[in-house]
Amino acid sequence: MIKKITYGAPFDTEAVTGAYESWQGELPYFSQEEGRKFSYRMAEEDIVFGLGENVRGINKRGWIYESKCSDDPNHREDKRSLYGAHNFLIVDGKECFGVFFDYPGKLTFDIGYTDRNVMLIEAQTGDIDVYVIEGEGPEDIAKQFRGLVGRSYIPPKWAFGYGQSRWSYMNEDEIREVVKKHREAGIPLDSIYLDIDYMVRYKDFTVNEETFPDLAGFAEEMKEQGIHLVPIIDAGVKIEEGYDIYEEGMAGGYFCKEEDGSEFVAGVWPGRVHFPDMLNADARKWFGGKYKVLLDQGIEGFWNDMNEPAIFYSEKHLQEVFEQLEEFRGINLDNEASASLNRLVGGLSNNEEDYKLFYHEHKDGRVRHDKVHNLFGYNMTRAAGEAFEELEPDKRILMFSRSSYIGMHRYGGIWTGDNLSWWSHILLNLHMMPSLNMCGFLYTGADLGGFGSNTTEELLMRWLELGIFTPLMRNHSAWGTRRQEVYRFTQTGSFRKIIALRYCLLPYLYSEYMKAALRDEMMFRPLSFVYAGDRFARRVEDQLMVGESIMIAPVYEQNAKGRYVYLPERMKLVRFRGPEDRKEEVLEKGHHYVDIALDEVVFFIRPDHLVPMSKGGSCVEKVDFDHLGLLGFVEKEGSYELYDDDGYSRDYESPSHYTQITVDAEGRISSGGEGSRKEFYLI
Amino acid sequence: MIKKITYGAPFDTEAVTGAYESWQGELPYFSQEEGRKFSYRMAEEDIVFGLGENVRGINKRGWIYESKCSDDPNHREDKRSLYGAHNFLIVDGKECFGVFFDYPGKLTFDIGYTDRNVMLIEAQTGDIDVYVIEGEGPEDIAKQFRGLVGRSYIPPKWAFGYGQSRWSYMNEDEIREVVKKHREAGIPLDSIYLDIDYMVRYKDFTVNEETFPDLAGFAEEMKEQGIHLVPIIDAGVKIEEGYDIYEEGMAGGYFCKEEDGSEFVAGVWPGRVHFPDMLNADARKWFGGKYKVLLDQGIEGFWNDMNEPAIFYSEKHLQEVFEQLEEFRGINLDNEASASLNRLVGGLSNNEEDYKLFYHEHKDGRVRHDKVHNLFGYNMTRAAGEAFEELEPDKRILMFSRSSYIGMHRYGGIWTGDNLSWWSHILLNLHMMPSLNMCGFLYTGADLGGFGSNTTEELLMRWLELGIFTPLMRNHSAWGTRRQEVYRFTQTGSFRKIIALRYCLLPYLYSEYMKAALRDEMMFRPLSFVYAGDRFARRVEDQLMVGESIMIAPVYEQNAKGRYVYLPERMKLVRFRGPEDRKEEVLEKGHHYVDIALDEVVFFIRPDHLVPMSKGGSCVEKVDFDHLGLLGFVEKEGSYELYDDDGYSRDYESPSHYTQITVDAEGRISSGGEGSRKEFYLI
Repeated sequence: MIKKITYGAPFDTEAVTGAYESWQGELPYFSQEEGRKFSYRMAEEDIVFGLGENVRGINKRGWIYESKCSDDPNHREDKRSLYGAHNFLIVDGKECFGVFFDYPGKLTFDIGYTDRNVMLIEAQTGDIDVYVIEGEGPEDIAKQFRGLVGRSYIPPKWAFGYGQSRWSYMNEDEIREVVKKHREAGIPLDSIYLDIDYMVRYKDFTVNEETFPDLAGFAEEMKEQGIHLVPIIDAGVKIEEGYDIYEEGMAGGYFCKEEDGSEFVAGVWPGRVHFPDMLNADARKWFGGKYKVLLDQGIEGFWNDMNEPAIFYSEKHLQEVFEQLEEFRGINLDNEASASLNRLVGGLSNNEEDYKLFYHEHKDGRVRHDKVHNLFGYNMTRAAGEAFEELEPDKRILMFSRSSYIGMHRYGGIWTGDNLSWWSHILLNLHMMPSLNMCGFLYTGADLGGFGSNTTEELLMRWLELGIFTPLMRNHSAWGTRRQEVYRFTQTGSFRKIIALRYCLLPYLYSEYMKAALRDEMMFRPLSFVYAGDRFARRVEDQLMVGESIMIAPVYEQNAKGRYVYLPERMKLVRFRGPEDRKEEVLEKGHHYVDIALDEVVFFIRPDHLVPMSKGGSCVEKVDFDHLGLLGFVEKEGSYELYDDDGYSRDYESPSHYTQITVDAEGRISSGGEGSRKEFYLI
Repeated sequence: MIKKITYGAPFDTEAVTGAYESWQGELPYFSQEEGRKFSYRMAEEDIVFGLGENVRGINKRGWIYESKCSDDPNHREDKRSLYGAHNFLIVDGKECFGVFFDYPGKLTFDIGYTDRNVMLIEAQTGDIDVYVIEGEGPEDIAKQFRGLVGRSYIPPKWAFGYGQSRWSYMNEDEIREVVKKHREAGIPLDSIYLDIDYMVRYKDFTVNEETFPDLAGFAEEMKEQGIHLVPIIDAGVKIEEGYDIYEEGMAGGYFCKEEDGSEFVAGVWPGRVHFPDMLNADARKWFGGKYKVLLDQGIEGFWNDMNEPAIFYSEKHLQEVFEQLEEFRGINLDNEASASLNRLVGGLSNNEEDYKLFYHEHKDGRVRHDKVHNLFGYNMTRAAGEAFEELEPDKRILMFSRSSYIGMHRYGGIWTGDNLSWWSHILLNLHMMPSLNMCGFLYTGADLGGFGSNTTEELLMRWLELGIFTPLMRNHSAWGTRRQEVYRFTQTGSFRKIIALRYCLLPYLYSEYMKAALRDEMMFRPLSFVYAGDRFARRVEDQLMVGESIMIAPVYEQNAKGRYVYLPERMKLVRFRGPEDRKEEVLEKGHHYVDIALDEVVFFIRPDHLVPMSKGGSCVEKVDFDHLGLLGFVEKEGSYELYDDDGYSRDYESPSHYTQITVDAEGRISSGGEGSRKEFYLI
């Protein structure tokens, strides 16, 4: 049951698919002022889920958050915003409901920060659509919400393989070497990411011919080794006479303009850039069409970056700063003057005032950027997604973005941005998974091993032990940090076994992903969504349900040799040291301390559930999805509904993709359904 | 058994008290190169304890640390240095030994960072004294080391009370209000800290007469209410004609000089300053004598700050930066140019090159600052400590410092610097306690509630539940952050009860502190120091032994309602909601999940151990230390050795300070010893 309550004249974010009529009654649960302040009194036991990509726990209580897409790589626990704006919450406790604040500008969520017991949501203006959702519990509410905002993006199957990235692999030979090292060490790999240095001076849709003299040929060479090249695309277009994208954008009037009609000048990687007006349908169509430049060279996947949009400086502000700097020359820089100087220079990047300097030409009229700030990355990715549907109607293209708003989940996934090689960011990765899933973002994952700062062998290994479960499984790191390709460490064999296990789990993970996407469900769920009556399950912030059969409880503490795990029911613990070395143990409901050595992957299977597993492969296309081992915890009868398809075409709905599998207590397997050509065996 | 191995010609840090002859044999355990690279191959089970004030766990394995005293308030887990340099380690595993690298310059500890199994310690030069300590186990080794470096600082008893701080309480009335609010709400309080704004333009040993027109009178007024004022002292002396400290320093030649003999100019709070040459005995004597200015106004405690020394900029470098800034004006600031600009401006503060610009006149000759960098804060505090011994021979003066080196522990405590209102910093606080204790720093604690960033009511309350056990118990927060005096939140009653409990625990905490100081022992110990044969105790990173009777296991997770606790033996759980509301439960050895509500303090008492408790009081001098309740877990016979004294004089050694208490299984109390005038009762 969904009620839409409209205040003022909301901007059409297109987050919600189709028209949804406003309800004329009063807003339930909340008291509101001016259609822009919404407050709810929380009971002591209430949990607040949601907010997608953000800091802190699965339970968002106890902090204040802002929906304001920001390029901030310092994911400290006191940050209020990361790269996305995901304004959906579920309150679960005394009352249970979901609420979506469809609002494209800055929105503050004070969830027990100012007053422990009060949730206060505050918008900049009273123009907002509020959707209140009631249902049978949080899982049902999330599903209803997902139905409201439309089906989640589905990537090609190869995008569930392991990807290796670096800012940046500088040339073809460096990539050949990275691929060779993985292949030689027997480490499965499906993709290599091209960060900003593959371009000429950071110019979108160009390729540096000195370092990548024949991208099409190189892409083909890589594909023969089972590797996809995935280039980055940035939001800003370099201002440079003779650069075709710049000139076309100027000619077409596709760039964001200042109040006086001149193109807004920001500084990003290339220095001075213009931003394509992603909220203008014509500009979007033009920009989206440009991806063809790379598609034509055999590229099948992209990541959209810097699309909050990140602004290192605006040309206007930069000039002011240089003028003001003069005032500091030669004076006694005491506390106050030092602080002013730091504010002046530190305030150059991602300055809120800069976002007030430019405008969008939207179908509903001209709008100043800051009022619709959170829609920029969404619409950049939409530009690509809509173009792919035209350019490649029968083929899935990998697409994920840094910045996002709900609605974008239909066009691409996200990675969780520029995290750090911190132990606490393993847990943050875990916390974000269900929060993002409920907001529609299924294809997602963190930069495994950490993007900023220097990783360690132990951190990377523990992080991969979580990462093998996330749909996007990518190892990525920043310029100037320690190299973190897994073959660079001492325990290469352990890394190989952990990543190999990912490929064994692919039939299960892909099936669970597809069912979640096609049914508007969550692939990663908090324990309490599944075990609604279990009071202790409500407390658990470091375990997750992954799909219908598995619970995970990764280690995220340095030097740990195990961890505490809560079992909400009797489960089978499965312990892997690589695909061939498996130990099993049935544990009773309750609290356990579980030893988990550094090179072990441990997960838990629910009673009468199955996990279909392959024998693995060096890349996704080498994985045999037709002969599957069944790992299960069968007490009476285990059953599983398997989804599979060719992984490339867009024909998702065919019943032939489903196979029903059952295993009885004597270990007899039966399978049926239109996809029943597959063969199964017990393992 | 201690072996001193000398390489080259080490600088005399005076960390070790007395002369200690070098051993002529080979360095055990380590292989070394050039007397400056020391490597040790770690076994999988080895734990490495030590490094005092630093990031990460009690077990320091898995990261790389630098001894390089730094003013960095961003205590991220990827930092390598904080404010102190504490070069003592204990390896406990296949082999067990302690090692102290007595070296005043930058020292790197790669403890399994580059290679998981290798510890590599690297100095800048091959002039170093290495002390290797062998003993019966880590506790014995720590005790031997402490004997080597001399007795830890002992503060006055009132310094074990609760302190309230803020950068800054700006005037007398603001402080009166803070005290009044505490007193009205019945929240015990013993001290108010004066941060930098009590001075005139941040000039040491001045008092702003507009805001504090009569400090002596005000200090007296506060003392009548049981409150001590504790002013901050900074390392840099403002360059200002007519300012007596500046002029005396110039006249005496007491400031650090550049190579050409001119005084080095750095920028800190006052703008341009000179640094007193803390390594020059004459300058130290002069600077220490200045504390008399404030002692004479009734001040009995100080905190020394910015004594790494922090440098916002050097005048020389600042001018260069302003010149180089010109090169950026008007150019296209692309990736590389932006990065250069950020490095240029960001590199102004705490720049390693600046530390090479000035010199010390040490008894053994002139030495460039960077070579002895880690001794500056130590010697600033020594200046004060030595002065206090002369100025106030019969009275303890509170003194703690931000920067430190081992040796400084004889002259003052430390606080753990400018932490943040992060949940992870509660755990960091816990991790530092035993690490600091083994290095000699007993009087220590963190800024409760967090210094930087904004606290929350829940964070502050959970942190106080740990803070009531730390000798220094101070609530402190930074300019521009949320106010965090406890009366500003909704649950004032809960805060009152938690802080009141601290005062009830004072007889135990003070006794344990004094015994640890007088016997070179640790007050806070990792579980494995006490339960040497317990393999699981070695894993525990979030519980501590506090003194001889208590184990603590604080909550450090947002929204948690309890936590897992490991009991290395059968213990009594004691649960307090304030002094009057106590519940007890005996728990068996092993793993437990313990409910701990937000307003509850839970700790554990070892079998046949006692905890003497007072009835509390509004400040330390109101606490009755002579009529004590005994909280115990008596199975056969509980015993406790109580230390107590007047808390002000320096006569620590008298046997009259000790009382032996026993309680038998029937609850009969007996007490003896020269301090046996005290009366005890069971609670």
